[in-house]
Amino acid sequence: MDIYERSLARHLETHGKIEVRSRMRLESQDDLSLAYTPGVARPCEVIAADPGAAWDLTWKGRTVAVVSDGSAVLGLGDIGAAASLPVMEGKAALFREFAGVDAVPVVLDARDPDEIVDIVRAIAPTYGGINLEDISAPRCFEIEERLQDIGIPVLHDDQHGTAIVLLAALRNASRVLGRGLGSMSVVIAGAGAAGRAITNLLTCTDADDRCVPVGKLRVCDSKGILVPGHARNDPTKEAMARHTNPEGETGSLTEALRGADVFIGVARGGLLQREHVAAMAADSIVLAMANPIPEIMPDEALAAGAAIVGTGRSDFPNQVNNVLAFPGLFRGALEAKAKCFTNAMKWAAIDAIASAVADPSRGRILPPAFDRSVAVSVADAVAQAARACGVCHETSTVNA
Amino acid sequence: MDIYERSLARHLETHGKIEVRSRMRLESQDDLSLAYTPGVARPCEVIAADPGAAWDLTWKGRTVAVVSDGSAVLGLGDIGAAASLPVMEGKAALFREFAGVDAVPVVLDARDPDEIVDIVRAIAPTYGGINLEDISAPRCFEIEERLQDIGIPVLHDDQHGTAIVLLAALRNASRVLGRGLGSMSVVIAGAGAAGRAITNLLTCTDADDRCVPVGKLRVCDSKGILVPGHARNDPTKEAMARHTNPEGETGSLTEALRGADVFIGVARGGLLQREHVAAMAADSIVLAMANPIPEIMPDEALAAGAAIVGTGRSDFPNQVNNVLAFPGLFRGALEAKAKCFTNAMKWAAIDAIASAVADPSRGRILPPAFDRSVAVSVADAVAQAARACGVCHETSTVNA
Repeated sequence: MDIYERSLARHLETHGKIEVRSRMRLESQDDLSLAYTPGVARPCEVIAADPGAAWDLTWKGRTVAVVSDGSAVLGLGDIGAAASLPVMEGKAALFREFAGVDAVPVVLDARDPDEIVDIVRAIAPTYGGINLEDISAPRCFEIEERLQDIGIPVLHDDQHGTAIVLLAALRNASRVLGRGLGSMSVVIAGAGAAGRAITNLLTCTDADDRCVPVGKLRVCDSKGILVPGHARNDPTKEAMARHTNPEGETGSLTEALRGADVFIGVARGGLLQREHVAAMAADSIVLAMANPIPEIMPDEALAAGAAIVGTGRSDFPNQVNNVLAFPGLFRGALEAKAKCFTNAMKWAAIDAIASAVADPSRGRILPPAFDRSVAVSVADAVAQAARACGVCHETSTVNA
Repeated sequence: MDIYERSLARHLETHGKIEVRSRMRLESQDDLSLAYTPGVARPCEVIAADPGAAWDLTWKGRTVAVVSDGSAVLGLGDIGAAASLPVMEGKAALFREFAGVDAVPVVLDARDPDEIVDIVRAIAPTYGGINLEDISAPRCFEIEERLQDIGIPVLHDDQHGTAIVLLAALRNASRVLGRGLGSMSVVIAGAGAAGRAITNLLTCTDADDRCVPVGKLRVCDSKGILVPGHARNDPTKEAMARHTNPEGETGSLTEALRGADVFIGVARGGLLQREHVAAMAADSIVLAMANPIPEIMPDEALAAGAAIVGTGRSDFPNQVNNVLAFPGLFRGALEAKAKCFTNAMKWAAIDAIASAVADPSRGRILPPAFDRSVAVSVADAVAQAARACGVCHETSTVNA
């Protein structure tokens, strides 16, 4: 059986991938009186008087909802809420296994951004964080943005998880090659969810936020370099164009790549030819994220002159796998009782992932996906950054 | 420490009462490929083509959401979503412990019935059933009713759970006394959520549904017997009045109780005096549900001539505890892939609970709350009734 039929068989065998367990003994009338009525009235009253106590008295302080409308699932596209449930359950299982976070899927039979925002806002008191997943662009941008004030961190992982691991890869690649990012010219192919998040992290300029600028940054969509004021730009692309290309440079991807140091592909398999890489600067960095077929295969990129190649695939070196980011990101946010994710928290995660490789080399710019210590380091770094940013709920008196 | 402070301490110690576990091994790249990308694409595709397969391939077939807006919590009243979370978690823990059902809380920062209906409808693809909990009347009636067509069973437990266990108690009480329910005169004090559900079950007349009529039924609110056409009736009370009192009998609770065989109290502590019970028929049945103070204390009711007394309390005989009903009800509905709960399914649960007492006596008309076999019997009976009613989703082809 191939991987797909084996997966189906395993799903049938386990009837899904997660389950709920009781943490409190329920063996006697006394247990029942403590866990439920009448004793439970007391924790309820404490939370009513001090909402922050919910982090200490309920599962809220440990729990993330993985929310999707099933509109942009894996390579499957718009398959709807019900059919997306196996993916969200899988994500929940990864949260538990990699970071001890209790995560539950919430798939939504809803499409209107207003409606999705209202629903997430309404269910938010149940959870300590919201992982938005597999929601199609550009709705995912608006939905995530409008949920930043709900008092718990909301993060669209398809954007930020990928961006964070990719930038950790880029940071270590630049260390291996002994060249600072500030002198590098970077081209991103793909102006979708991940492309936007990478761009935002590389161009963030908030006073409180950490930012590692690159020497030059160009973003290309299928029509070429994004240029401010172009008629084809939607608001998202217009903002990316203004942040990266105020000079208004025009040209194709081929032209953009000429002499560039770094190619970041978040576009489609087979986009890049050997000639593209050959036209880049010597010892270039190629991070080709399209899955399962990368923008260019590693052997071809290396043959054309690339020094370091990363992909999304586990069967090549340097796998950019966002399981390195999201479990620790949310675990850290929960530990700090963070109200949101800031860019500084994301950069702290990037640093922690990059630092998890003690001695990076061309074939090893990222820790392996199964290195369980990464989530712990990421969580510590993210929690510390959240506290430094001052975006955390106060410690409740119940814990004093 | 009293029960309340001990409960608070235990909640602080466990940080809530439920947790999420992974059911699938996640130790290797192969495991990851089966549980998540790329293998998970196959179960997604199967569900997209055949939505019923979600019961077999995901947690849906095992999972209930305990949904509340925190508007009518225990004796605490309207404490809001966040503060109600400990109760909903407790309920989820009971689902797991008593019936092996995976249940998760969903507390809603929403009050408008339209909004709550829309939210539950949207999140429904995630779960196999919805337990509405602690939602204030009359909104709970409208919300439950409008959610009957969403394809998974929705039940407001404060209404039906209590009604089902109480009617099981009444059934065994009538057996112990050797008198059929059909010859009995029953008075319900309390026209709220539970009173309405008891009335509905005792007067159900759907062709497909089982119904055990009592000889005479009167419902009293704080102003006396409900009478059709009375100016004070809201639509709920008007319907109850029409179903129970077409004759238009008027009078106080005191007058209604004169000569009655059964008193069902779902009203408030201390409502009943000895004289009320003394005025009832000889060897009466008194089921006084108000908590923690029943409408009349058991010793007083017995002294005044009652033959059998039940309360909601665990420290008296004949505890009417809805933990005897809800775990098995939902477990049975999930096993049958039921689309809704019918009256026949509720009556099947009543029969199963009553039958769980092998040899009922005046001091033992219900099984003990901790008899774990009850949920199994209830589940079997409910699943069988669901299949007989023809309200189940078809078996998916994936399981063929």
